[in-house]
Amino acid sequence: MSRFRLTETVVFMTEIGSRANEKIKYAVRLGESASLRKEKKEFFLEGARLCRDAAENGIKIRQAFFTESAREKYSGYVSAVENACGECYTVTPDVAGKLSGTKTAQGVFCICEMPADNGKIDYSGRYTALENLQDPSNLGAVCRTAEALGLDGVIVSGGCDIYNPKALRAAMGSSLRINIIETDRLETLIEQANAAGMLTLASTPQADAEKIDGIKTDGGVICCVGNEGNGLSDSVIAACRKKVTIPMRGRAESLNASAAAAILMWEISRKG
Amino acid sequence: MSRFRLTETVVFMTEIGSRANEKIKYAVRLGESASLRKEKKEFFLEGARLCRDAAENGIKIRQAFFTESAREKYSGYVSAVENACGECYTVTPDVAGKLSGTKTAQGVFCICEMPADNGKIDYSGRYTALENLQDPSNLGAVCRTAEALGLDGVIVSGGCDIYNPKALRAAMGSSLRINIIETDRLETLIEQANAAGMLTLASTPQADAEKIDGIKTDGGVICCVGNEGNGLSDSVIAACRKKVTIPMRGRAESLNASAAAAILMWEISRKG
Repeated sequence: MSRFRLTETVVFMTEIGSRANEKIKYAVRLGESASLRKEKKEFFLEGARLCRDAAENGIKIRQAFFTESAREKYSGYVSAVENACGECYTVTPDVAGKLSGTKTAQGVFCICEMPADNGKIDYSGRYTALENLQDPSNLGAVCRTAEALGLDGVIVSGGCDIYNPKALRAAMGSSLRINIIETDRLETLIEQANAAGMLTLASTPQADAEKIDGIKTDGGVICCVGNEGNGLSDSVIAACRKKVTIPMRGRAESLNASAAAAILMWEISRKG
Repeated sequence: MSRFRLTETVVFMTEIGSRANEKIKYAVRLGESASLRKEKKEFFLEGARLCRDAAENGIKIRQAFFTESAREKYSGYVSAVENACGECYTVTPDVAGKLSGTKTAQGVFCICEMPADNGKIDYSGRYTALENLQDPSNLGAVCRTAEALGLDGVIVSGGCDIYNPKALRAAMGSSLRINIIETDRLETLIEQANAAGMLTLASTPQADAEKIDGIKTDGGVICCVGNEGNGLSDSVIAACRKKVTIPMRGRAESLNASAAAAILMWEISRKG
């Protein structure tokens, strides 16, 4: 047991010094396994700022783990997490090394509850939909750009999940703030959007696709971006009203998924 | 010594089985150290496709290292490298693990000579200039997007170098194909570009910056993008003719450098 003085209260904090501790093993597994995250409706978060962002965005924090040095170095962040947290533990630097997915661990970690409700689509809003994205860094980068450009949400269908630790890092907290709609039937969602009058766009290098900068809309729009290797599925392309493309002058198809999504989101965010 | 039959020639291939081999240690250091790369005018390249790209783009390959299984699995790539290469070595899987910066090593590596000449600026062309970019993955991603959008080159001033292994990976070979101009005096380069009639743009979130989509040009243009944390230096902003910005609706300054560069390059690539 180590002892901390926080303002006027004396808090006794349980210290975890073993990598084999069940709570630590569970936290590591939660970071590694999308299926465990889905089953337990929990996710693992690392980093002083990300954990503080979660606390400030109303994400329920079930457990938090800090090193003693993190408490000093990131005291503002740590106290925001402590105030929002069910159980707090002190961990040794060795245990922090086990928990961390980075070379430069800050020593701040937590286990959070996933928001209970799936996001909703406003049929007059602007969205990007990601089908089966494989690279969590791309997924996180898209969330970050979507927030910066003021999109109304990101639709995620298959592929990696937004709670993958690499996706959370690349998103810089944006995926905890923006509207995320998860679906395993993207075609159905697109058909409903079509029926509601939205413009649905399939991004594809196919020769008959329209250039994205020629598309006009002042209403709701969903722009679908596909998997890094294979692009969008035929069924999603067929469900969308229009095919769109980013005209390339260099080697064909050489845009990275998150760069392509950035340009597409930029275009749909400023229409109308 | 192991023995290979290549078309009609019998080649005797030296096998390296020790991680402590001087050639292996040198290759690893070359991957790790920008200053060693600069001093020796050589860089380390990993991956079957990247090494083949180097060979096909006229990059001089001084040494190549393959595992036996890579020779079988990537035979087309490996033979392209062998044909272009001064010295080839077979390495054991253990040595390949030492050479590799990834978890899933393909077992194909080479040491290449840096192109002797710095790139040139065509004053009617379109360029992005990167000042002091810190994240090699961002640098590589910008090169990839620049190639896809058909820019005339990428100007690199300070920060990480394009031969950083992570930058090479993220660039997917584009940095070996496109025109790269390195400079340690970006302001001077911008002043010369101004004198030659180019439109020089400084990307900055400053309130008096013009929106990038309002900028008109049908001539040569350079759009400068700054460091991830601090943006462009004051002297580069002062040297440029105009300040430009990507209007953000979400949280300010939350665009990733490579996403911001993608949008800026998209805008300058389609003007005029």
